[in-house]
Amino acid sequence: MSAANPPKQYAPGARKVDAGTTAAPFREEVRSQVAKLKQSGIESPLLVGLLANTDPAAKKYAEWTGKACIADGIRYELRTIEDPIDVEAALCDANDDPRVHGIIVYYPIFGQVESFSGESQDDYLRDTVSYKCDVEGLCHQYRSNLYRNIRFVDREHTKKCVLPCTALSVVKILESVEKCYDKSKPIGRHMEGQVVTIINRSEIVGRPLAAMLANDGAEVYSIDIDSIYLFSGGRLHKCEGETPESCVKKSSIVVTGVPTKSYRLPSNWIKEDTTVVNVASFKNVDEDEILQIPGVSKYTLLY
Amino acid sequence: MSAANPPKQYAPGARKVDAGTTAAPFREEVRSQVAKLKQSGIESPLLVGLLANTDPAAKKYAEWTGKACIADGIRYELRTIEDPIDVEAALCDANDDPRVHGIIVYYPIFGQVESFSGESQDDYLRDTVSYKCDVEGLCHQYRSNLYRNIRFVDREHTKKCVLPCTALSVVKILESVEKCYDKSKPIGRHMEGQVVTIINRSEIVGRPLAAMLANDGAEVYSIDIDSIYLFSGGRLHKCEGETPESCVKKSSIVVTGVPTKSYRLPSNWIKEDTTVVNVASFKNVDEDEILQIPGVSKYTLLY
Repeated sequence: MSAANPPKQYAPGARKVDAGTTAAPFREEVRSQVAKLKQSGIESPLLVGLLANTDPAAKKYAEWTGKACIADGIRYELRTIEDPIDVEAALCDANDDPRVHGIIVYYPIFGQVESFSGESQDDYLRDTVSYKCDVEGLCHQYRSNLYRNIRFVDREHTKKCVLPCTALSVVKILESVEKCYDKSKPIGRHMEGQVVTIINRSEIVGRPLAAMLANDGAEVYSIDIDSIYLFSGGRLHKCEGETPESCVKKSSIVVTGVPTKSYRLPSNWIKEDTTVVNVASFKNVDEDEILQIPGVSKYTLLY
Repeated sequence: MSAANPPKQYAPGARKVDAGTTAAPFREEVRSQVAKLKQSGIESPLLVGLLANTDPAAKKYAEWTGKACIADGIRYELRTIEDPIDVEAALCDANDDPRVHGIIVYYPIFGQVESFSGESQDDYLRDTVSYKCDVEGLCHQYRSNLYRNIRFVDREHTKKCVLPCTALSVVKILESVEKCYDKSKPIGRHMEGQVVTIINRSEIVGRPLAAMLANDGAEVYSIDIDSIYLFSGGRLHKCEGETPESCVKKSSIVVTGVPTKSYRLPSNWIKEDTTVVNVASFKNVDEDEILQIPGVSKYTLLY
């Protein structure tokens, strides 16, 4: 995208970057691994998608997954389920099927329904995906390991944990921005000295991302509607004196993920040379405004 | 309690029953098992309680657990944690400590906080209790096994799954009522022919209970704010034509668990000889009214 945008309207050094550019080398790696399998006579992995809703966004996402799999040599099978109450059985079938290597569930299935307990049935389904098939890294075991900085499934350290996918994609974006990650430092300290604000603390994006960046040495402010936490030095701290404004103003990396159409981050909170990543399905930042700030890099992740 | 109540004010056969009476033989069994361990020179099991709130109900519950443990010969250690954000670390310490046999977390820890995602951090904690220490049977693995009618943790069938505790206590109450369970039938069919309505579908009480009774052969209507499901014959069905009233009116067992002070089940929906169990912390049924219905048994479980 950057080539198509007239750079003159931006402040010096400001740029809008397409996440696809960051993804390209990883997709190349997937293709080469699948090719190696085929050369050894092993069938390419099978990813099963479970779709049980008519939400156009979920349908679109299911189509994209299919296209990406085909392009990368992965077998893909979309299973469409009429009634949400049948998804659990279909999911367990796929978990137990040795021919299935990966499972992706297209949410919402039940969505945020009205219930006495306030629970979402989708959270239950998310944790029902077996860790052996969980390509999104969202089941409880993977999240719990991440929060404790446990990087392998087994004691022998042969199988790496799968990291929550959307949060991992933000990390990959930040790794591609030279100033965010310092790979000359030892593992666990690549982000030392970096201050990050993440506006979202869901178990899908915000909390895993905060943990990952803190595990890499950053100081991470995690903001939700009712509270601000600081993830730092392997520990979680409560921030009584901070406000969203004070956090963003001292951050060189800001990630927004607010699932509300009306939310807009005030552009004047963002300092020069900040990397801004928006992972919401809504525009949480005013792109035109922040690209007037010198040195700002702006990424968008469709989510 | 039944002895203290003047029976003349009740309809013929109607009775109010104290859950403690049902519990007594199980506590006796626990005491005898602990005594056997001690005779073999094995220390009695250690239960760790984690309390991180000043909610008087949670504190009271923690005290009760302690008293019950001491009475039954189980060692009990209450760990009070100042800040909710430190509970996860304390929980992981207890999970990893080979001296700890059981863990009980006193909720709410975070409670239903305002968040962009609508998730409750308490659900995450509930699933973080290792299945090896989960005396309440509420972690995802135990619930998931229950919903699939898998009764053992291991393939060799040496270790039984722990069933969700509050739901199990309702089963034990129903087993104590002669007309509910027919133990002359084969396993899985003890409740054949019984129609049950459960008003609550939380992952803590309503859904596990519906699964347990359906696994025993009952037809179970599961009611929540926005939907009615029927658990029957190992499967979940959507009930388009039913209403709470139509379900209760055909049920011989009714379980209420609505966490709202204002909710009251209309007494005229309940037919004669029905067993009514209230597991809410509020009075969901008008006790005086339903005890005017011939043959009604009324149980209360503090929750």
